[in-house]
Amino acid sequence: MPYYQFAKQLTPISDPVADLKRLRFITDADVKLTDANQLWRHLLQRVAVHTPTAASFETWLGQWLANPTLDLATWLNQATPVTNTIFTRVSCQLLGFEPGRDFDLTDPSTFLTTSKLTLPLGDEPLTPSALLTNFFWLLLTRGKNGQTLLDTLTGEGYLAWSYALPATQKPLLFNGQPTANFDPAQFINEVVFVETDVDTDQDGHADLIKVEITRPLDSNQGLQIPAIFTASPYNQGTNDEWGDELMHNVDQPLTHVNPDYQAPQEPAFAPPTTHQRVNGTREQATETFANTPRYTLNDYLLARGYASVYAAGIGTKDSDGRQTCGSPEQTAAMQAVVEWLHGDRTAFTDRTSGIAIQANWCNGRVAMTGRSYLGTLATAVATTGVPGLAAIIAEAGITNWYDYYRENGLVMAPDTFQGEDADVLAAETYSTTRNPARALADHVANENYLAQMRQAQDRTTGQYNAFWAARNYHPHLSQIKADVMVVHGLNDWNVKPNHAKALWEALQKLPGDHKLILHQGQHIYINAFPSLDFNEMVNLWLAEKLWQFPNQAGQLLPDLITQSNLTPGVWQPVSTWQAPLIPTALGHQMITINDQQADATATTWRHQPLTWFNSLLNDTDHHFSYRVTIPRHASWLAGTPTLTVRLKSNHNVGMLSAYLVDHGTAKRLTTTPQLINRHGLQLGYHWHTDDLRDFKLQNQPTERHVIAFGHTNLQNPTGPTSFHDLQADEWVTITMPLQPVMHELAADHELELILFGTDYRMSFRGNQALTYTIDLSQSSLALPWTDFSLQ
Amino acid sequence: MPYYQFAKQLTPISDPVADLKRLRFITDADVKLTDANQLWRHLLQRVAVHTPTAASFETWLGQWLANPTLDLATWLNQATPVTNTIFTRVSCQLLGFEPGRDFDLTDPSTFLTTSKLTLPLGDEPLTPSALLTNFFWLLLTRGKNGQTLLDTLTGEGYLAWSYALPATQKPLLFNGQPTANFDPAQFINEVVFVETDVDTDQDGHADLIKVEITRPLDSNQGLQIPAIFTASPYNQGTNDEWGDELMHNVDQPLTHVNPDYQAPQEPAFAPPTTHQRVNGTREQATETFANTPRYTLNDYLLARGYASVYAAGIGTKDSDGRQTCGSPEQTAAMQAVVEWLHGDRTAFTDRTSGIAIQANWCNGRVAMTGRSYLGTLATAVATTGVPGLAAIIAEAGITNWYDYYRENGLVMAPDTFQGEDADVLAAETYSTTRNPARALADHVANENYLAQMRQAQDRTTGQYNAFWAARNYHPHLSQIKADVMVVHGLNDWNVKPNHAKALWEALQKLPGDHKLILHQGQHIYINAFPSLDFNEMVNLWLAEKLWQFPNQAGQLLPDLITQSNLTPGVWQPVSTWQAPLIPTALGHQMITINDQQADATATTWRHQPLTWFNSLLNDTDHHFSYRVTIPRHASWLAGTPTLTVRLKSNHNVGMLSAYLVDHGTAKRLTTTPQLINRHGLQLGYHWHTDDLRDFKLQNQPTERHVIAFGHTNLQNPTGPTSFHDLQADEWVTITMPLQPVMHELAADHELELILFGTDYRMSFRGNQALTYTIDLSQSSLALPWTDFSLQ
Repeated sequence: MPYYQFAKQLTPISDPVADLKRLRFITDADVKLTDANQLWRHLLQRVAVHTPTAASFETWLGQWLANPTLDLATWLNQATPVTNTIFTRVSCQLLGFEPGRDFDLTDPSTFLTTSKLTLPLGDEPLTPSALLTNFFWLLLTRGKNGQTLLDTLTGEGYLAWSYALPATQKPLLFNGQPTANFDPAQFINEVVFVETDVDTDQDGHADLIKVEITRPLDSNQGLQIPAIFTASPYNQGTNDEWGDELMHNVDQPLTHVNPDYQAPQEPAFAPPTTHQRVNGTREQATETFANTPRYTLNDYLLARGYASVYAAGIGTKDSDGRQTCGSPEQTAAMQAVVEWLHGDRTAFTDRTSGIAIQANWCNGRVAMTGRSYLGTLATAVATTGVPGLAAIIAEAGITNWYDYYRENGLVMAPDTFQGEDADVLAAETYSTTRNPARALADHVANENYLAQMRQAQDRTTGQYNAFWAARNYHPHLSQIKADVMVVHGLNDWNVKPNHAKALWEALQKLPGDHKLILHQGQHIYINAFPSLDFNEMVNLWLAEKLWQFPNQAGQLLPDLITQSNLTPGVWQPVSTWQAPLIPTALGHQMITINDQQADATATTWRHQPLTWFNSLLNDTDHHFSYRVTIPRHASWLAGTPTLTVRLKSNHNVGMLSAYLVDHGTAKRLTTTPQLINRHGLQLGYHWHTDDLRDFKLQNQPTERHVIAFGHTNLQNPTGPTSFHDLQADEWVTITMPLQPVMHELAADHELELILFGTDYRMSFRGNQALTYTIDLSQSSLALPWTDFSLQ
Repeated sequence: MPYYQFAKQLTPISDPVADLKRLRFITDADVKLTDANQLWRHLLQRVAVHTPTAASFETWLGQWLANPTLDLATWLNQATPVTNTIFTRVSCQLLGFEPGRDFDLTDPSTFLTTSKLTLPLGDEPLTPSALLTNFFWLLLTRGKNGQTLLDTLTGEGYLAWSYALPATQKPLLFNGQPTANFDPAQFINEVVFVETDVDTDQDGHADLIKVEITRPLDSNQGLQIPAIFTASPYNQGTNDEWGDELMHNVDQPLTHVNPDYQAPQEPAFAPPTTHQRVNGTREQATETFANTPRYTLNDYLLARGYASVYAAGIGTKDSDGRQTCGSPEQTAAMQAVVEWLHGDRTAFTDRTSGIAIQANWCNGRVAMTGRSYLGTLATAVATTGVPGLAAIIAEAGITNWYDYYRENGLVMAPDTFQGEDADVLAAETYSTTRNPARALADHVANENYLAQMRQAQDRTTGQYNAFWAARNYHPHLSQIKADVMVVHGLNDWNVKPNHAKALWEALQKLPGDHKLILHQGQHIYINAFPSLDFNEMVNLWLAEKLWQFPNQAGQLLPDLITQSNLTPGVWQPVSTWQAPLIPTALGHQMITINDQQADATATTWRHQPLTWFNSLLNDTDHHFSYRVTIPRHASWLAGTPTLTVRLKSNHNVGMLSAYLVDHGTAKRLTTTPQLINRHGLQLGYHWHTDDLRDFKLQNQPTERHVIAFGHTNLQNPTGPTSFHDLQADEWVTITMPLQPVMHELAADHELELILFGTDYRMSFRGNQALTYTIDLSQSSLALPWTDFSLQ
């Protein structure tokens, strides 16, 4: 397993010797030592956190091998000078690698190459100064446990002495980034209620939303700290059963859309007529909480001096309002939290007293974090350009809700959520149900609201309309002022990669420091992989964005990193996510696809969409699909393919689906990270943990893997806002983007395109008697072939 | 989901009013109140941990429904007297149940019946005294989150005030059991090295073993506390890759055993020639640790005033010796830890200084906990009768290693570990590899030892021998002096139910308080189910065993609880695990089983034993098995079936396998608990968590479920110590027990017996040309049919 460490670079504000002194790895006296071996012994004493006595430290030394035959205690007593190679042999063991199994003591070089760990080799005696530099880098090197030695020592309590330092001296920096100097046992948990400018429950009063804050005690003692704000509609609970009950029936036919069709509009919310009167102020909150589900990245940052702030927003437990599922009001309510953190908005200590409270502990600089809906709202708030929002880390976020529940005029489900829609998600996240009396009082109005949403979202046609336009952040992406780190899974079929692509393209046109990490997972978090130093990258990056330490993280970190789909644990900086398109003709024939299945088949496929999926991938007799091999132009595909197809339907309705397939027998990467060590990641000292996990190769080889796909309604031939009054047997030319790809095609694999109608995993499945005729001679696929030169 | 609460019984040392006062739910003034509504308001204020101000408490009250139309704040202002029904309506909400979804406000009675929650109903005005009693019981009632309201409030910080009480006043009891009065942020983590009387590395010195202790600071302040000791060979790390490499090949033939056959003996360990000299003593340990993998039950108990003590034992990181996999030396080393806790043995602060340290913080009473190997060693140590070991909770423990890796003369794998044996487990758990220099120094000797173990365990024949006799705890079960709580899964095919059955039968002949809980899982922990109050039962039970609070837990808790295999979440006290056997004839025919498969089939089945398993269950044409329906005599099977079969093999080797099958289409229980709420169980306040989970019904119905099985070598016709020099075509009568069952046969299901040869999941798979002829007229199955009368 390679260990990629993009944050392991010397920052311009780091001085290794000063940094080591600051963290008490060395004293002034240590710096003056002329004997490298003696200095090394002192450094090792710091590493041996749990064996403080002379006797126990000697035993501790005696467990390591200095060379293939001598233990370190014995070796140190021999007075042979320490060399880079000796240092690295021992260091590999300190990092948890086992001699004989993980690496060869006689040949550490091979291990360093395969593991990508950068540690020095060489047989010259080390100077004390070179030894200190070695040790500085060792602390920043990741071990087998997926954490740097510094973070491992932190988890063992090495930094606990720093808790007692004056708050204003914190955080102690190491290589230009905060270390864990904040006592988790002393964290403050407090609740405030931020007043928004929206009134989504239409009671006349501005909606109040509950905000849960966890922050180090030091922020009450003169240290103003940045805030990590996570906007999570799920955070106060979810109504899973209710959501299941509301799932829509997708086993229904496509219907012809007439040119004059218009779906009902959703109701507009009148602005609030009253705001709460301020009756006084308090310095400290009065309401508290004990436990809240929290993204483990936030836990990691909390121990390093950040506040973690959560709001579930309108329509959730202890807050006012409705769940609007992505509307501007939801964004405005989350924006209000940033405004409060920045000092621009009122919050109260409780819902009724009118006692206002300021975020006087906050330095006014905020980053938003979170995945999926959470990442969505981070992006949405960023598009407001709200002051104080310095950065967002948008992971697997939606950037256009139409692209989440619809596609090119079709109702289209996120993978594994067939039948879900905006109204279902609104009901699922309406945790006001946890306030039974308030839910009862709101029941009729909320049901009415959901009924109107159900009309406005329009599952009858799947056409783009005002409802979806209100939930499309694309027109506002140009107003983003925050620096943005985008994280997305190339195999994410829930929030699909085109959401990230649109954001990334918009960011290319903006000033600021923007990063993109593309991984091979589906809808997952990536802060737990031994192979990628995501936590360290974030700590480095946010040190610049939020603390404004001039560590030049923006310049040091690559702008675009992509994970290899071929080799586990390989992460590569690449230059672009959009290579120029190279068109390919698809053939000369006229082909026919019969989309109707025998009733029994359709029933099976509706119940088991994966059975359909396997049939599709292996449908060699083309009875319901057409597969064509696409010639290779280069080894990589990087960007959004465009498919053009000339076809007709035998009725005045129709849809075309296309899957782009990597074909070749191989053990591919798992799209879900596999557990390596439960609770293996210590996010601080006696603080929360996370499970160490990473992608591995599948146990069994597979033949095919879908790397991109697209669907279009024949009535929307060139995209959701195009419209065509389709007639039966009328030829149309459709042009559609497939999902963006970033994929290396193995040398012995080939690329295939599969064309078909109904997608049992995602689309309506009416099993209509539809037959499509495709004129391949007037169809083509344009692909972003490229050859990255990678290490 | 029903909530069974066996610990929810008034203990003789509880006075509800005094208990409520002790935990500060009421003051002396509260007791004198004559207005029940006012008293209720005061109690609710205690429950509203996070909303301390008048304004925020009013909002908190206003979220609950007192009746189908009025919120509690409004209702309380109306001065209608509180009744049982009003109290229970609100209480259900406090317990997390949602009106309208989880229960009907107009009919709480139905919910109470289905949920098994005991809360009072009635419309008479409550007296203050009756209200206090209600509230006392409410605190002991489990909520939707799977914890009692008291434990929920504990997790929210309600008891944090009690941390500051003098140590000697702790623990505060509630209903005769300790509450969480011990600050996790102040827990002491310390290491000592216990000197054993064994020398398994044969260096002449008594093996030292490392012991990791976590305990409340109060135990340094005059409070002597009990110790929960978990003996876990896994705890310092495992060598998974090495173990995989050592897995034995099972695709090999059965071989004929000659009467004079004897496997090589394992080497005996000479006793140590020297013990460490004591050079002084210390009151406090010098070595520490930060994190250790810990059973969450121990975490729950830690917050309630117990110490948690872990030792990995001989042959592990930082300890001396070898991994002997169940030998008497391993037991003796773990026994030594109990002796030290009881004051009868020396431990040192480190491995070399000779500074001794006593467990002066311990009250000398110890319980051992843990599952699988951990439960095994708890049982093993208990069989020594060591003073100080007051109780063990033996979960899924091995009681005879022969029954783990062998069966009636056959090499037989624990399920999913085909090819594993004692030597493999020894290598896997030899975490001395984490001390590279020590592992290198020990390498040759350890390899030699493993090679000898490999011979002595004897995979050539699978016969019982001295190696296995040394690892059979059955002859020593009668020496158990500790009270024993046995927990075992009826679907545990790893450590099979016969281990628990043997222990339980031995305990029936001993004095003391013994408990048995049989669940429907496989090899799992059960302390995380909403449906069973296992944590509370243990807390109650250990309060009697270890603190010696006379709460009469032994009398209050049922001796034998079994989980229903028909209905999710139902747990039933039953009278016995062995009903009298009723024999059934199997037929009149002579049947033939051909055990040899086509090569391709055998290859597939070797790679995919579950494919074989499905073929076996559905093998209707009897080409490699014979299936017979057994007439029903009652609705339950409770105990060990005995199978007698007259048969012959066409060669001088052979094996017979038998599966007892519940046949009938049904959605059965999952044998693995399903996640309900990740981190949903708070084991204390800002302390560790566990995932709430429970058995559910499978999503898809299944036809058959194997409820018992057995295998025997035809050369061992009546058990492992019987021997027969089998000849080809010689008729033999074998008699074998099947795994013990505790199973309710649904009315429309039937019972089947499947007879066959090779078991691809567990046995050798040599695919020999073996044909068995069975004379059904001389074969029979004796079954423990019974009719429990259950609620």
